[in-house]
Amino acid sequence: MKFKRPTLLVDEIKCRKNIEKMATKAKDSGVLFRPHFKTHQSAAIGDWFRDYGVEKITVSSVVMAEYFARNGWNDILVSFPVNILEIEAINHLAAKVSLHLLVESEFSASFLAQNLSDKAGVYVKIDTGNHRTGLSPDNLSDIKKIVQIVSRSDKMTLNGLLAHDGHTYKAGSPEEIIEIHKHSVRILSGLKSELEKDFRIPVLSLGDTPSCSIVERFEGIDEIRPGNFVFYDVMQYELGACFIQDIAVAVACPVVAVHAQRNEIVIHGGAVHLSKESLERDGKHYGWVVPLSDRSWGLPYPDCYVASVSQEHGLIKASDQLMRNVGIGDMVGILPVHSCLTANLFRVSFVDKLYFCEVFNPKTNDDKNQ
Amino acid sequence: MKFKRPTLLVDEIKCRKNIEKMATKAKDSGVLFRPHFKTHQSAAIGDWFRDYGVEKITVSSVVMAEYFARNGWNDILVSFPVNILEIEAINHLAAKVSLHLLVESEFSASFLAQNLSDKAGVYVKIDTGNHRTGLSPDNLSDIKKIVQIVSRSDKMTLNGLLAHDGHTYKAGSPEEIIEIHKHSVRILSGLKSELEKDFRIPVLSLGDTPSCSIVERFEGIDEIRPGNFVFYDVMQYELGACFIQDIAVAVACPVVAVHAQRNEIVIHGGAVHLSKESLERDGKHYGWVVPLSDRSWGLPYPDCYVASVSQEHGLIKASDQLMRNVGIGDMVGILPVHSCLTANLFRVSFVDKLYFCEVFNPKTNDDKNQ
Repeated sequence: MKFKRPTLLVDEIKCRKNIEKMATKAKDSGVLFRPHFKTHQSAAIGDWFRDYGVEKITVSSVVMAEYFARNGWNDILVSFPVNILEIEAINHLAAKVSLHLLVESEFSASFLAQNLSDKAGVYVKIDTGNHRTGLSPDNLSDIKKIVQIVSRSDKMTLNGLLAHDGHTYKAGSPEEIIEIHKHSVRILSGLKSELEKDFRIPVLSLGDTPSCSIVERFEGIDEIRPGNFVFYDVMQYELGACFIQDIAVAVACPVVAVHAQRNEIVIHGGAVHLSKESLERDGKHYGWVVPLSDRSWGLPYPDCYVASVSQEHGLIKASDQLMRNVGIGDMVGILPVHSCLTANLFRVSFVDKLYFCEVFNPKTNDDKNQ
Repeated sequence: MKFKRPTLLVDEIKCRKNIEKMATKAKDSGVLFRPHFKTHQSAAIGDWFRDYGVEKITVSSVVMAEYFARNGWNDILVSFPVNILEIEAINHLAAKVSLHLLVESEFSASFLAQNLSDKAGVYVKIDTGNHRTGLSPDNLSDIKKIVQIVSRSDKMTLNGLLAHDGHTYKAGSPEEIIEIHKHSVRILSGLKSELEKDFRIPVLSLGDTPSCSIVERFEGIDEIRPGNFVFYDVMQYELGACFIQDIAVAVACPVVAVHAQRNEIVIHGGAVHLSKESLERDGKHYGWVVPLSDRSWGLPYPDCYVASVSQEHGLIKASDQLMRNVGIGDMVGILPVHSCLTANLFRVSFVDKLYFCEVFNPKTNDDKNQ
């Protein structure tokens, strides 16, 4: 094992399988696949998507849009309620690429109508039950006002309605996730019927990873925007959104201490590598432990997990099997609870090389990134 | 307010007061002040410490040691169980600066004896009750073996014994924190007496921020290594380690949506800015909300807190007062729960400018970092 420090491992083969599967499902369903790039935030990984026909992407900040615009993407949706303070940067971007924005208030829509200097597409954000952002579907009066402001502006093109079913993450079963998805499709379709009395609503856009992974065929919508699926993680596995073998990232961590009396292993791999995202099933944990191989990693050791993290330390509660197999100076892999946050911590983002990030690829095998 | 995006604000005046207070207490107690730089990970902020006589520092990884060595620090303790895989980097560092390492096993001590190519100081890590790393004080036999290996090596100098009272973070009161500290001092002193029958133990080193902040005078130890105190945060405030006015960092976040019906405000400021570190008192929260001023920020709005974070979104549960005061396009400040993780996310680290990080200073006032 050539790694010496906490290193994000990205299995390109698994990523490509995940991308291909989602792209195929979208194509078979006749919906546009506009993947969310916030998960990897990497131009290099973004390029893999082009091989599966992806030309339009989603991001969650203007900074991220600027980064991907610099890296050759020219149809970008910033799927975050528009930050009017960034109007200058938004105008710069809108002059360069097909930019799409998200609004959920009359105030922001009017601001854009007055301050956009180039054309931008606009989605109206609908709250289908996640209760984070978006207009309540019951609030048809405000939705209509916003749609009207957008439609009348010569700088805005109305793309349609957009929702994010973040509440699928709290679902108890895959069936419940499908129910949430269907419920949201019904809400968006109902609104579309109502609005199309006066306006054209070209696109209904949905797309969290749990529902996009579990739903077999997309019906009643026009666009999906999943992001996490490229990597997946333990959280998605526990939701039933992927198989454990689909998880395409692991953090390689050096073992620095072994405490035999209490079946504990201390790794260099803490909150600044894995994040503080935790899951509660079988006790609170911050990731599962896997054996590393030359080109990927194996299945998790049963009954082993990262029980606590401080800034740089991770504390593994280990089975007898793991205690026998692992010693100081070895490396173990950790499957992260939430791969988006883990990838963000490894600063894959906004750098042009994958810093401390090793990509497993059948055709390349060098230490190019370290 | 000139900020347009999530921006880490560092109040230099507050930081300097925090540094000065700790440096003065250390000096008055006759102990060496070896601050932990993992909190800020910034050469620029590190330089402020020099004005208070600091010449020796603590870090938590070899990478961080390399960074500060490049930035003019030449007495550095890597306060993390030595990662033997990094021996090459350790040897490079040991050739350049006075490097100090931490060991807690015979295995690692022997490895260093055989593989160090330059001299390094060594501390033996004792577990005074935190149960993360370190040797049990009851395990005198192993402690003696390690001390002997270190003492006999011509490459290692025995600095002494080191402990980290991370369990002060779980204490219910300042009194309990003082008790933990005193207990640890007794453990280390007892070990020292025992070991000094055969070896010289020059230094007893302790130093978490809660105890270093609360204990009035250090007795029975030789060195303190607090880190967080330079910034403090809501967690430290709740532990009784600081006043709310001592907190020297806040994250400026744009307001992007306001939901009057449910007293909620959505900010651009999520897990990639604040981290997922949370506190449970008065409901789970990820930070408190403060009004921003030109040169700093005010006291927290009562009954307002960040109730949830996703990757980029923060959801504020707001009082009627805050709802009246704040609208889309405004900026609010968030006092972070755990400033070390927040600063790490803003990538103050390992960059030579403070990226997206604004330092408030009475003498400078430019947008130099954006």
